[in-house]
Amino acid sequence: MAHEAPHIQTAFDRDLEALQALIMKMGGLVESAMAGAARALEARDEELAAQVRAADTQVDLLERQIHQDCARIIALRGPTATDLRTVLSVMKTAGDLERIGDYAKNIAKRVAVLAQMPQVGNSAGTLRRMMRAVELMLKDALDAFTRRDVELARHVRASDEEVDQIYNTLFRAFLTHMMEDPRAITAFMHLHFIAKNIERMGDHVTNIAEQVIYLATGTLPDDPRPKADATPFAPADE
Amino acid sequence: MAHEAPHIQTAFDRDLEALQALIMKMGGLVESAMAGAARALEARDEELAAQVRAADTQVDLLERQIHQDCARIIALRGPTATDLRTVLSVMKTAGDLERIGDYAKNIAKRVAVLAQMPQVGNSAGTLRRMMRAVELMLKDALDAFTRRDVELARHVRASDEEVDQIYNTLFRAFLTHMMEDPRAITAFMHLHFIAKNIERMGDHVTNIAEQVIYLATGTLPDDPRPKADATPFAPADE
Repeated sequence: MAHEAPHIQTAFDRDLEALQALIMKMGGLVESAMAGAARALEARDEELAAQVRAADTQVDLLERQIHQDCARIIALRGPTATDLRTVLSVMKTAGDLERIGDYAKNIAKRVAVLAQMPQVGNSAGTLRRMMRAVELMLKDALDAFTRRDVELARHVRASDEEVDQIYNTLFRAFLTHMMEDPRAITAFMHLHFIAKNIERMGDHVTNIAEQVIYLATGTLPDDPRPKADATPFAPADE
Repeated sequence: MAHEAPHIQTAFDRDLEALQALIMKMGGLVESAMAGAARALEARDEELAAQVRAADTQVDLLERQIHQDCARIIALRGPTATDLRTVLSVMKTAGDLERIGDYAKNIAKRVAVLAQMPQVGNSAGTLRRMMRAVELMLKDALDAFTRRDVELARHVRASDEEVDQIYNTLFRAFLTHMMEDPRAITAFMHLHFIAKNIERMGDHVTNIAEQVIYLATGTLPDDPRPKADATPFAPADE
């Protein structure tokens, strides 16, 4: 803020700073959950997985707090135009972070199930790299949010295509493995759900990046990236 | 409204009525997309599937309009307390409807892919019944939203468990089929994605019902139903 044109800090500015701090705290917890879930998966570490699951409560509570604070600020300050858009974007971003945390928790749950099955394939490393890519996207998206950096937000949006590509590659590999070894179908379904969850995390990070673009330009990007399901419709084996 | 205690209709009340009308319009389009997608799947009707896909644009535009109208009403009227909660709930509900529409579009896309493959299993009827259950839930959730009917909203929330059970049953059946006929794995994966999309629609309808409970009671239900992924962790074949 120091290098921007000086302006008198209003009560609303202070409210907004407090909100941004909560978003950053929530973002930090979610990044930690993502890294923990991926590590637990690769090491088949059930204890770490249990920690990741337990930590999600904190993320949920933060979302509720942010939601209540936003409502209070709107009621108290009556923000309009850009200020109102900012508060609404904070609410949306908190919602996206909560969902990303939920997906990390879900992956952690599957670690316990997969640990009971014979190890199949060697996808844990690829899944960890995929998670790492989404973690970096999230870090950039939150930086872009704080600094209203449209270029960085556009970069995040473009990065999501790489995550989708990793997912598509994994999806085809899992299909092939399932056909080759039908006894391992259940294990590969779980691995597939994990890949899908990471891909969905990328979609929610993209939502955050799109909020930044919306805040800075007043319009959402024109070519919305698919959100509900980016599963390939024509896998390589056809 | 006629049987309630009479009160002077304010500009805010009129704004809210207009918003509710837009939500109902959006809900009608989404219900139609759901029914269309399920019918197209059962009849392998690619033309109907293409219509469902094309119609989703209208749903997306309505969401944007509702979002803009809500922001305008907040800025113009400065609602507080219950009024503010109502406007924020309308925004959330529009977001959930948009996602449900997205899932219907995604199912319609898969109809074209499945039509190119030999027909496998006989799950189209079950999928249609599952979709019908979620359609009824959506109808009830929107009625509950209009009338602030907490009991009906609780009923919708409970109904989602039945949808999850149908999904779990289908999931296990698909796994069994895949193991028995590995050549059909790709087709069953597509059918599984469709079942999963319907299950996710149920989650978003549940979100709408929870907004009604929140509006009427001031708090969200205490035992949140799982949202991100309700896939069974221990399928029957283990």
